[in-house]
Amino acid sequence: MAKPQKPTRVRARQPRGFTDRTSADLDAQGEMLATIRRVYETYGFEPVETPMFEYTDALGKFLPDQDRPNAGVFSLEDDDEQWLSLRYDLTAPLARYVAENFETLPKPYRSYRAGYVFRNEKPGPGRFRQFMQFDADIVGAPNVSADAEMAMMMADTMEALGIERGQYVIRVNNRKVLDGILDAIGLEGEPERRLTVLRALDKFDKFGVEGVRLLLGPGRRDEGGGEGDFTKGAELPAEAIERLLSLLKAVTHESDEAEFASRDTSDMRVTIIDGRKHFTDNQATLRGLQRVAGESQTAMEGLAELQQIADACETAGYGSKRILIDSSVVRGLEYYTGPVFEAELLFDVVNERGQKVVFGSVGGGGRYDGLVSRFLSTPVPATGFSIGVSRLQAALKNLGRLQARPRSGPVVVTVMERDRMGDYQLMARQLREALNAPGQPVVPVEVFQGNPKQFGKQLQYADRREAPVAIIQGSDERVAGQVQVKDLAAGKALAAGITDNAEWREARAGQDVFRYAPGDPSEMIAAVRAILARGDAAR
Amino acid sequence: MAKPQKPTRVRARQPRGFTDRTSADLDAQGEMLATIRRVYETYGFEPVETPMFEYTDALGKFLPDQDRPNAGVFSLEDDDEQWLSLRYDLTAPLARYVAENFETLPKPYRSYRAGYVFRNEKPGPGRFRQFMQFDADIVGAPNVSADAEMAMMMADTMEALGIERGQYVIRVNNRKVLDGILDAIGLEGEPERRLTVLRALDKFDKFGVEGVRLLLGPGRRDEGGGEGDFTKGAELPAEAIERLLSLLKAVTHESDEAEFASRDTSDMRVTIIDGRKHFTDNQATLRGLQRVAGESQTAMEGLAELQQIADACETAGYGSKRILIDSSVVRGLEYYTGPVFEAELLFDVVNERGQKVVFGSVGGGGRYDGLVSRFLSTPVPATGFSIGVSRLQAALKNLGRLQARPRSGPVVVTVMERDRMGDYQLMARQLREALNAPGQPVVPVEVFQGNPKQFGKQLQYADRREAPVAIIQGSDERVAGQVQVKDLAAGKALAAGITDNAEWREARAGQDVFRYAPGDPSEMIAAVRAILARGDAAR
Repeated sequence: MAKPQKPTRVRARQPRGFTDRTSADLDAQGEMLATIRRVYETYGFEPVETPMFEYTDALGKFLPDQDRPNAGVFSLEDDDEQWLSLRYDLTAPLARYVAENFETLPKPYRSYRAGYVFRNEKPGPGRFRQFMQFDADIVGAPNVSADAEMAMMMADTMEALGIERGQYVIRVNNRKVLDGILDAIGLEGEPERRLTVLRALDKFDKFGVEGVRLLLGPGRRDEGGGEGDFTKGAELPAEAIERLLSLLKAVTHESDEAEFASRDTSDMRVTIIDGRKHFTDNQATLRGLQRVAGESQTAMEGLAELQQIADACETAGYGSKRILIDSSVVRGLEYYTGPVFEAELLFDVVNERGQKVVFGSVGGGGRYDGLVSRFLSTPVPATGFSIGVSRLQAALKNLGRLQARPRSGPVVVTVMERDRMGDYQLMARQLREALNAPGQPVVPVEVFQGNPKQFGKQLQYADRREAPVAIIQGSDERVAGQVQVKDLAAGKALAAGITDNAEWREARAGQDVFRYAPGDPSEMIAAVRAILARGDAAR
Repeated sequence: MAKPQKPTRVRARQPRGFTDRTSADLDAQGEMLATIRRVYETYGFEPVETPMFEYTDALGKFLPDQDRPNAGVFSLEDDDEQWLSLRYDLTAPLARYVAENFETLPKPYRSYRAGYVFRNEKPGPGRFRQFMQFDADIVGAPNVSADAEMAMMMADTMEALGIERGQYVIRVNNRKVLDGILDAIGLEGEPERRLTVLRALDKFDKFGVEGVRLLLGPGRRDEGGGEGDFTKGAELPAEAIERLLSLLKAVTHESDEAEFASRDTSDMRVTIIDGRKHFTDNQATLRGLQRVAGESQTAMEGLAELQQIADACETAGYGSKRILIDSSVVRGLEYYTGPVFEAELLFDVVNERGQKVVFGSVGGGGRYDGLVSRFLSTPVPATGFSIGVSRLQAALKNLGRLQARPRSGPVVVTVMERDRMGDYQLMARQLREALNAPGQPVVPVEVFQGNPKQFGKQLQYADRREAPVAIIQGSDERVAGQVQVKDLAAGKALAAGITDNAEWREARAGQDVFRYAPGDPSEMIAAVRAILARGDAAR
């Protein structure tokens, strides 16, 4: 046969903004998702899954970046000349699902789903174009008690994951408060300027009060002197700016310890200001917000809802240490109509620039009363919450709370005589069946499938896979009706020169020979079992 | 405020060829995936996951339908003007992953992954544009012993899922046998005609020997007389056609029971032909194939590999009942270079046209020695197997083997006084914490979050959710420091008029009143626990 022509090589590279995931990462994620799922299920939520694609018109476009129409969404025309889009979140597809199945679903309808979403954006550090969210939603829930429940469930989720009370907080705000005040300062019917203001407020975490003041006024230049990027401001009058800023500052810290002496403060948020302990009280915050809201009807309505949420949380035993009324919360998505929430982790991490920063948001959500009724003639109130799975996983890793148990390395059956693969497969099968009882951790067993020519490579492979045991049967052993069972951990320890414990050496001699016949593998199995048990005990 | 204008309604519909999935479906799939995963792990495979997208050039195009270039793949240009494609299988992305991480991976590299793949095709019954595959691959395995292992693992997987021996078979063929014979009949260097021939052979299951004979010769008209669609044939000479047909017929059924009397035939395939038991023997099939292969070097090489596979399987204890050498297997994907396999389910099902048909293929795979080396200068031999998850799930459903345990309905805390949501949330929290021990099945507990005005609707909801218990506290109970705990199953039985067992009625009186205080929920908890225990016992 003619030698085939050398083909042009393709460069192997993962697409920018997408990532491959290996076993440690996937195992940890699996444990994490199982924990979250269990919390959601104890609240009566059931899984439902929608496809990755939706018709573009059905999906709608609610991403924050409205400057460029259709930016952020991956869309394409299919063979039928229909426009399809990949989902950018799990809420818009849920709304389509509920509308399509409205008659047959129980109402309220509690559901959860974990899945990948896609954003056609410039990728950056920690910013991916495919990432996983884990959502829970109640559709057909008209009252803010459902929003309060979402906040409580998020708090429970954080603690179930091992994030301690005080290391996280669920911040709760209400779109109506902001909407009312934006109307009151004269921005009614000015969607673009409203958006600029919301974006400015959203930067509170990043730039602080002074930064937001600039963004609400003349604009702000990035640090780095005259060279920094300039962000145009909302150019509001001074009075409007101060009113908005007082919103951000309205989380009230009361320092009168005497007042709190009569109360259980173990679930109240504590901040150290000027060296003194201050307690945050949602009720006091709400009184403060009332002063800012002034005469705005919409804002007052929003505050009344926040009051109900704060009351329900307090009565159900969730204090401000866990669920915090905080008017600085602005959720980016356009479809929120009422309460919004954000789960924030409060411990410090070192960012990519080596700076110590608060970890920040790992999820959020809110009420979206208009999303399902885009499709229907009846109003369908709904509220939900979305966890950013990858960010949360990074946080748990940082806390040392990823508890996926390590996988056992495989028992490796080596290949001495290459025409006897069936015999080695039989040994592997016998071990696999004997060592894997249902419900117990997996003990992998495999035949070496690389090139068997150099035996050293087979042991290198076993070492690379952290194999606890190697099975060896060459012609000598075959003729003698035997098999070698090699304790690789013991062998490694010996090789490393551990000689101070003669008894241990003797007990776990790295290699031993046992009787073996295809019809009677019992001694081989017992020998492997003993080595694995010693390994488990040593761990 | 002005009444908002009625927006234009969007029609809620799932995109064609995509599907929503509900809890029963997802629970069953979860159990199934866990079973498959466990089998793969006992063979030493570890998970790895690649993203949904690849660069179009890196993904390559190996789908069978090569008539229309780029047909079948969803592709789009991203913001960076790079062409991206959604994966159409899990093998091509794995090849990219291995090539990109070649230096750091253990070799052989055993990995598995479950995930959605996408095909931009006309959807039809049971034919989706997004569907799940579950693959296992060994990369860096030069010998066909690895192919034999894949076939054995697939057989183990089928049985682990509850598909009995005899209800499935793993068919094994070798591309080289076909390639060699196609060369020998004069089709060397004629890729298009070769493809026509392969497609014709692939129709053996569907049209039988006579149909394939027409497709290899003058062409075939679909049933329905002169009106049926005409498929152009390969127009081979008669001798070539007969040679190819003898390949299809080469699975040898030997009926000499005397010959088999000395052997254990419990794992041999049995077919009833003309009322007599015939036994299929892979060794005899291989002898038959040798006669067809004639002098072709490539075909002989392919047969030698099949011989090794058959030998290894037989020695390791897998007979022709499970792993069958069958030269009618043609896998559609273009990248296979050696052994190919197909997992087929043998029991009858009724198809969408009401006809009784064999269930057919639920997965397949083969050796793809060229796929990783598209990216590298070294050859990287590899073999793998892919399970069609949805098809397999449909099969298991058909067999009654989907064993996901039913979910418990929620304990529903009803809302009698709507300004007391916090109190009801507290009850729910107390029950949720008390009833959900780690490692035990979930007992969901929820507060009713719909409109609480009509109490009947709340009980209807509880009924709809199959709630075992409802908690009720109106003003009377509140004042008395009590709560009603309603056994809904008992209530339902009573309502259904079951009156023949007075004792039972008394013991499970549908509704009872218990002492309850926010600080002491113990009697409420005990009452709920008792009802749930009775429910479990009754099941």
